Amino acid sequence: MTRGFYIGRFQPFHEGHHAMVERIGEEVDELVVGIGSADQSHTVRNPFTAGERIMMITKTLADLDIITYAVPIEDLNRNSVWVSHVQSMSPRFEVAFSNNPLVVRLFEEAGIEVRQSPMYRREEFEGTEVRERIAADGDWESLVPDAVVEVIDEIDGVERIQQITASDANGNGDPADE
Amino acid sequence: MTRGFYIGRFQPFHEGHHAMVERIGEEVDELVVGIGSADQSHTVRNPFTAGERIMMITKTLADLDIITYAVPIEDLNRNSVWVSHVQSMSPRFEVAFSNNPLVVRLFEEAGIEVRQSPMYRREEFEGTEVRERIAADGDWESLVPDAVVEVIDEIDGVERIQQITASDANGNGDPADE
Amino acid sequence: MTRGFYIGRFQPFHEGHHAMVERIGEEVDELVVGIGSADQSHTVRNPFTAGERIMMITKTLADLDIITYAVPIEDLNRNSVWVSHVQSMSPRFEVAFSNNPLVVRLFEEAGIEVRQSPMYRREEFEGTEVRERIAADGDWESLVPDAVVEVIDEIDGVERIQQITASDANGNGDPADE
Amino acid sequence: MTRGFYIGRFQPFHEGHHAMVERIGEEVDELVVGIGSADQSHTVRNPFTAGERIMMITKTLADLDIITYAVPIEDLNRNSVWVSHVQSMSPRFEVAFSNNPLVVRLFEEAGIEVRQSPMYRREEFEGTEVRERIAADGDWESLVPDAVVEVIDEIDGVERIQQITASDANGNGDPADE
Amino acid sequence: MTRGFYIGRFQPFHEGHHAMVERIGEEVDELVVGIGSADQSHTVRNPFTAGERIMMITKTLADLDIITYAVPIEDLNRNSVWVSHVQSMSPRFEVAFSNNPLVVRLFEEAGIEVRQSPMYRREEFEGTEVRERIAADGDWESLVPDAVVEVIDEIDGVERIQQITASDANGNGDPADE
Amino acid sequence: MTRGFYIGRFQPFHEGHHAMVERIGEEVDELVVGIGSADQSHTVRNPFTAGERIMMITKTLADLDIITYAVPIEDLNRNSVWVSHVQSMSPRFEVAFSNNPLVVRLFEEAGIEVRQSPMYRREEFEGTEVRERIAADGDWESLVPDAVVEVIDEIDGVERIQQITASDANGNGDPADE
Repeated sequence: MTRGFYIGRFQPFHEGHHAMVERIGEEVDELVVGIGSADQSHTVRNPFTAGERIMMITKTLADLDIITYAVPIEDLNRNSVWVSHVQSMSPRFEVAFSNNPLVVRLFEEAGIEVRQSPMYRREEFEGTEVRERIAADGDWESLVPDAVVEVIDEIDGVERIQQITASDANGNGDPADE
Repeated sequence: MTRGFYIGRFQPFHEGHHAMVERIGEEVDELVVGIGSADQSHTVRNPFTAGERIMMITKTLADLDIITYAVPIEDLNRNSVWVSHVQSMSPRFEVAFSNNPLVVRLFEEAGIEVRQSPMYRREEFEGTEVRERIAADGDWESLVPDAVVEVIDEIDGVERIQQITASDANGNGDPADE
Repeated sequence: MTRGFYIGRFQPFHEGHHAMVERIGEEVDELVVGIGSADQSHTVRNPFTAGERIMMITKTLADLDIITYAVPIEDLNRNSVWVSHVQSMSPRFEVAFSNNPLVVRLFEEAGIEVRQSPMYRREEFEGTEVRERIAADGDWESLVPDAVVEVIDEIDGVERIQQITASDANGNGDPADE
Repeated sequence: MTRGFYIGRFQPFHEGHHAMVERIGEEVDELVVGIGSADQSHTVRNPFTAGERIMMITKTLADLDIITYAVPIEDLNRNSVWVSHVQSMSPRFEVAFSNNPLVVRLFEEAGIEVRQSPMYRREEFEGTEVRERIAADGDWESLVPDAVVEVIDEIDGVERIQQITASDANGNGDPADE
Repeated sequence: MTRGFYIGRFQPFHEGHHAMVERIGEEVDELVVGIGSADQSHTVRNPFTAGERIMMITKTLADLDIITYAVPIEDLNRNSVWVSHVQSMSPRFEVAFSNNPLVVRLFEEAGIEVRQSPMYRREEFEGTEVRERIAADGDWESLVPDAVVEVIDEIDGVERIQQITASDANGNGDPADE
Repeated sequence: MTRGFYIGRFQPFHEGHHAMVERIGEEVDELVVGIGSADQSHTVRNPFTAGERIMMITKTLADLDIITYAVPIEDLNRNSVWVSHVQSMSPRFEVAFSNNPLVVRLFEEAGIEVRQSPMYRREEFEGTEVRERIAADGDWESLVPDAVVEVIDEIDGVERIQQITASDANGNGDPADE
């Protein structure tokens, strides 16, 4: 039995992530999907809460053949203990999947196997693209799984992103700003 | 669709918890199992990591008819923001299940419905009982689901609890103690 | 112009505190009332939030001749920086009033004048007494100023303390406990 | 009785804030002035400590007809619990005043009434303007109430801002920088 | 070249610690002395700051043949990342010396060699003994190296411990207590 | 006896720092070298852990005539308590050496003597220069002491910096980024 680990912020979970999970699913028996920056929400870069992202992932992957776990990972802001933090929050895994050179480095220094793929880089750009299209009332629905459209609708996510984006553009991205 | 929320430390997840989840399952369509003190591990009171507890819960509940989510909840040590913290880490829920008067109070002050049951109190004592039997090489296996026995075996949990218990008895339950 | 500083947890603000503030008022022109453990609430020892304690103090001292400031001080749990933390949260003060030997020590090591009085010790016991009488439906109203009775009534504080006390007695004083 | 809540960083409290408070004062009986980023000081953006800002606000508003509370609010850096954090630090309030879209969003998601006004946006720019004039030895006194001039003089604030601004310009806005 | 790691709280560094360091010195070329609970001070259990403990250790070990490093380790209160935290704060080491079963367990789970000795247990008791003798004006000087007597004298440590002990005995071991 | 304090991030410790320490050594009997941002590592700006930096400094300064202490200082992100934090982590010192205007200001507000020198500013630029040369496979060895070359080689520091720099350039400087 091989269990894999795949980290992302999933703001939101989109088709690029979905394709990646399916592809990793061919290599492992179980997959832990680590939801990074779990403590962040209601910002331009991290609009959705960890709970909302758990729903997106769980509902999208419900029909996948392999067992998946969606695990929120809060930021500790200490790279030197990041791998241990992830390991304590996650079911045990043997291999990590990432194309982020920092993540690759941290896992390798800890002696954990990492598998990379040229495909990974696409996704971050897609995350930004999805958020920008939501902010601009563009066609974002085609970039994410149907289950994610449903979650975003249920939580009134479009209006949230549009309000937060306005806040940020005015220079008050922090609730303490006037 | 009704989603419920049930919080515990699950150190470990035992038959009392299992029965409770099955009973709650008759009242809701989906259930979020919140794993409290998720940042604590390797202590007499909290021997298992959040990741290990996720495995216990997910494996035990795999055949349950309702959809369940196992969500780690780190301690913030501020009761006044605890409900908001839980809500941000969890998929949305309409009703919380607890017999802990503090939890009941916190949810009620936040305007969230709480359902109580005389059965709940039994469980905390069982948690302590399970840990004490593991420490004393007693029969603990009969108190927990089979999947939990497997997880504890896989992670070498019996030896961990016995070592930690020795540490605590000697007055050095903290790694900084000599 | 002399400004004094007086720290307490004020759980709740009672007649002993009130008398002390009046007495200090004879020595200073302005008084900062520092509300310690401001981040704690909903526990047996710290039932009220900082905001609720601000209301108790401000309303009780409204008619006092000297200017008073009620300032919440969150716990940092590092005694070595405690004085600097207090100074940053408070208007400047020249003299501190305390009978807590630790506080006396910390201020003295920082070169700040401290004035002590045999009267101070009585108060902590009164704080516990007030909370225990509330928990036991005893006569607590006679131990606190009228304005404090009003605040506790407005926030439904009697019921809160009774529920929290029940929680603690059952061994689940933490929301993560089952 | 209606109590309002108005949040800002007040670095420093200037005539724009003052006018806003007077305007809000026509709508409420009591007003809580929440001092955001209370834990920050000695930076270009946040030069003054919470204690110094409490003095500015309390002295400026001493003659106002309505009761005001100046309450420091430390940053938690978790938007999802921000409203609960504010509520725990503040006397109870029924309505919040803000034009920051993020604050509006957070309060609305928590079910709290928010009132907006076109006037609010002016203020943030004035805050920056005041700090820049202080740094450049310009006429900043005309932008703030007299009581604020006195506080800044008393704490030697002009020199502080000029030194900090020099630090930041040199790329060492953090004490760990060489 | 072998570098060892030896953790303690060193409140204060006493002859038991000294003997242990000399004994370890026979097994390694360099030794890192990790000062645990570095962020704690001014309490009955942790009276001295990290800086004061660095002085005690550095001065006592100045004539030792092997190179030693005195490294403060702040508490993170997460056992699962404790080893990584220690590794990030310390020069690299190959072997850890401890008789605390929790520390042994944590290092072993991380794959690091630990050497134990029956002698270690004596020390914790000696630490408490030294502090109690200081509090009671007993003969504590004979239990610690000469350099430690000098440091405690220089920082007025006897008076500090006596004041803090009085505070704790009165039930106000926290600066927020009245 | 005069003890001095010199703070830096030392990423890495280079010849500019080395010259400064030698120069300060002419003015004091003992020197504390405070390693700022001790909790940061594996970033473009802070590639090395505190432990690695302790090794660089201790090995480089081994032959210096004066006694030196290398003390890690974790970031607290509260300027108002920074001086107290430094004082608690460091052996007592009488004079601080810095040319960072913020540091000068913070020490002066706390009543501690600070000595400045036109030379200091050079160093920060050299730190960036060293890191950029390592990233670009340029000649960085000539800018740092031999002992630092050895440490960086031992920990495989060149490869680490090159991987981290690639990560940052791609917009994923945080392990949560995809």
